[in-house]
Amino acid sequence: MPVGNLSFPEMMPIAGVQLSAVSAGIKRSTSDDKRLDLVLIELPVKANVAGVYTKNAYCAAPVSLCRQHAAYSSQSRYLIINSGNANACTGELGIQAALATCRAVAHHADVDYKLILPFSTGVIGEALPVDKIEKSIPELFENLAENHWHLAARGIMTTDTCPKGVSTSLALDDWNDPLIINGIAKGSGMINPNMATMLAYIMNNACVDKQLLQDILIEAVNLSFNRITIDGDTSTNDSCLLMAAGTSAINIIDKNSPHYLTFKHSVVEILTELAQKIVRDGEGATKFVTIRVEEGASSAESLKVAYAIAHSPLVKTALFASDANWGRIVAAIGYAGIEGLNVDKVRVYLDDVLIVENGGRAPSYSEDAGQAVMLKDEILLRVCLGRGSISETIWTTDLSHEYITINAEYRT
Amino acid sequence: MPVGNLSFPEMMPIAGVQLSAVSAGIKRSTSDDKRLDLVLIELPVKANVAGVYTKNAYCAAPVSLCRQHAAYSSQSRYLIINSGNANACTGELGIQAALATCRAVAHHADVDYKLILPFSTGVIGEALPVDKIEKSIPELFENLAENHWHLAARGIMTTDTCPKGVSTSLALDDWNDPLIINGIAKGSGMINPNMATMLAYIMNNACVDKQLLQDILIEAVNLSFNRITIDGDTSTNDSCLLMAAGTSAINIIDKNSPHYLTFKHSVVEILTELAQKIVRDGEGATKFVTIRVEEGASSAESLKVAYAIAHSPLVKTALFASDANWGRIVAAIGYAGIEGLNVDKVRVYLDDVLIVENGGRAPSYSEDAGQAVMLKDEILLRVCLGRGSISETIWTTDLSHEYITINAEYRT
Repeated sequence: MPVGNLSFPEMMPIAGVQLSAVSAGIKRSTSDDKRLDLVLIELPVKANVAGVYTKNAYCAAPVSLCRQHAAYSSQSRYLIINSGNANACTGELGIQAALATCRAVAHHADVDYKLILPFSTGVIGEALPVDKIEKSIPELFENLAENHWHLAARGIMTTDTCPKGVSTSLALDDWNDPLIINGIAKGSGMINPNMATMLAYIMNNACVDKQLLQDILIEAVNLSFNRITIDGDTSTNDSCLLMAAGTSAINIIDKNSPHYLTFKHSVVEILTELAQKIVRDGEGATKFVTIRVEEGASSAESLKVAYAIAHSPLVKTALFASDANWGRIVAAIGYAGIEGLNVDKVRVYLDDVLIVENGGRAPSYSEDAGQAVMLKDEILLRVCLGRGSISETIWTTDLSHEYITINAEYRT
Repeated sequence: MPVGNLSFPEMMPIAGVQLSAVSAGIKRSTSDDKRLDLVLIELPVKANVAGVYTKNAYCAAPVSLCRQHAAYSSQSRYLIINSGNANACTGELGIQAALATCRAVAHHADVDYKLILPFSTGVIGEALPVDKIEKSIPELFENLAENHWHLAARGIMTTDTCPKGVSTSLALDDWNDPLIINGIAKGSGMINPNMATMLAYIMNNACVDKQLLQDILIEAVNLSFNRITIDGDTSTNDSCLLMAAGTSAINIIDKNSPHYLTFKHSVVEILTELAQKIVRDGEGATKFVTIRVEEGASSAESLKVAYAIAHSPLVKTALFASDANWGRIVAAIGYAGIEGLNVDKVRVYLDDVLIVENGGRAPSYSEDAGQAVMLKDEILLRVCLGRGSISETIWTTDLSHEYITINAEYRT
């Protein structure tokens, strides 16, 4: 059960962007429970595409190929995405399999295969069943439609409990067209900064300069997907794409363009909401926890403290138990590795309840007040370091029995 | 249930070293289940004491005081240790409580209170019940005996399922006395390099120069307690003491002394065995896992890879499930942050079974072979990086439902 409202929103169509999903038999499924596992997204000819990818040294074959194809042209025509198999740690055969997938799509669409971007997510180390993918290509193309966002979001899921989408539509005062931004994403385990088993596709109807689009994506990812963590693991397959279809009259050519800031702000908001949905649907999550570290001397040290707390299994199990065991929080702050940290200046809050000051429990603190916050589904854990003025915010979950169950049984 | 044999050994007495443990009512206990929670260790007048302590910025009050007292004199006379309350994050009142404990012991023994070393372990952030400790001091002194090692080992336990001790006795060819080294330790959660909720006391009957003793301890801790991890959390109260009673004719004054190397080697062995016992009794542990990273370009990078694997919740849950899900292992190697890692040169083994080479599954690997290793209680996970000749070894456990249960219920 995800934490909070993850209902799939109404998605306005974006002219020229068509989506499709079919069951190709890549995921294990019984005949009466066919699961979607192959997705195709078609972009209009003049679309621009920006992407950021996993930094894992064992980067999966489709990610390597996708990087090459994206470098060849920023005007890719198709995205082909399978779930159920990551095509990672598959060596040269994995590259050949990803390439065969691209060629199959290109052949059917009669375009250069380098205009196809491949993506995979699922189990690592197993051969990608290319034949199943090839067989499904005609059906995929037949099903393409501008309103298949929900279908595509379902098709990219692995251990996600629900499809994730975000949509926004903004009337800009000097354009007739509204600005439309849609995003879909998947991911619920192996989630960590630098992205993790996370796939996200964000499309809009503007015409945006390709370098500008890339810069906006990097900034937005840094404030969203690189600020979430579930289990601290970073996957081999992460990819996040920002695509400008260019099928409206909205034109953003540089940072001085009208609405540049509005556009960028909206992209950041969409990515943040998608990232938070991933955390809310984190494997076994029962809490949605915002960790804000304030008064740091640098962004790096504020993040260091935030992640020390977010990655502590002891803090995470206390969150699961709704136990205001604040000793574990201060222990995590203490071992985060901040040189010369003066614990007498550190304050720790649960929502607005001051727990710790002057190196110990705040006199005003009561277990009941702490407990009342911990019982909530959504918790703000705030740390003031007393060293400067830099704040950083990240989002995470608790560590539950269900996390263990999901991950101890994933392959069986 | 710990993994492997943790039976408490026969401990030979060390002349002049007496131990005692009582139930002072610090731990929650019912009348028919009185749990030992206060331990006293008496050292002879000419003993030398060396110590290393937690690096957590929220270092507990007894640790601060212990550091001061150990700096005042290396010839401490008594160690007073309570379990059930960490006296950490207790501010100035915590320091006063630790001081009152030392004064109570000193008063009863009629020695300078700075010759008393205080230690605490248990829940963080609650006031230490000094009155209960003071009341128990006479009984503690009455019970002092040279053969109370098992009693003392029980008295320092918190979530440990069994007391932990190690003992060795060596006949040295030019001395009549055998060299005797005994060690007791506690700890099973919040275990991480830089020590964690870990208390360890190692005594021997030699006469050892105090600076040499400190140097040996630092080297031994680095090869033992700083090479184990259970949940990645580092506690506020870690302490490890090495004490040379000086009550035998064995004399080790510098690195050229006869038997210096034998002595050092034995100390390293004792600490390693104690450290491994802590891992074997790790909270919820069902596996004892040795992670050896070979062919690193430096010690730092070999350790980085080893800890990335050891701290991955996905690897740990796969270990719990006895699932040879090697994709999670290579993902952890990939995100360990080794600059320029060539995955084509990396090999991964489970015991002697080669799983991964050339960036993918080894052709010789079979699921059955991997599964056979994973089903064992004790597993060697070996990674060859193909970058140099530096090996590092660490020890860890799996992540089980019981870990969650223990840590979600610890305070309740």
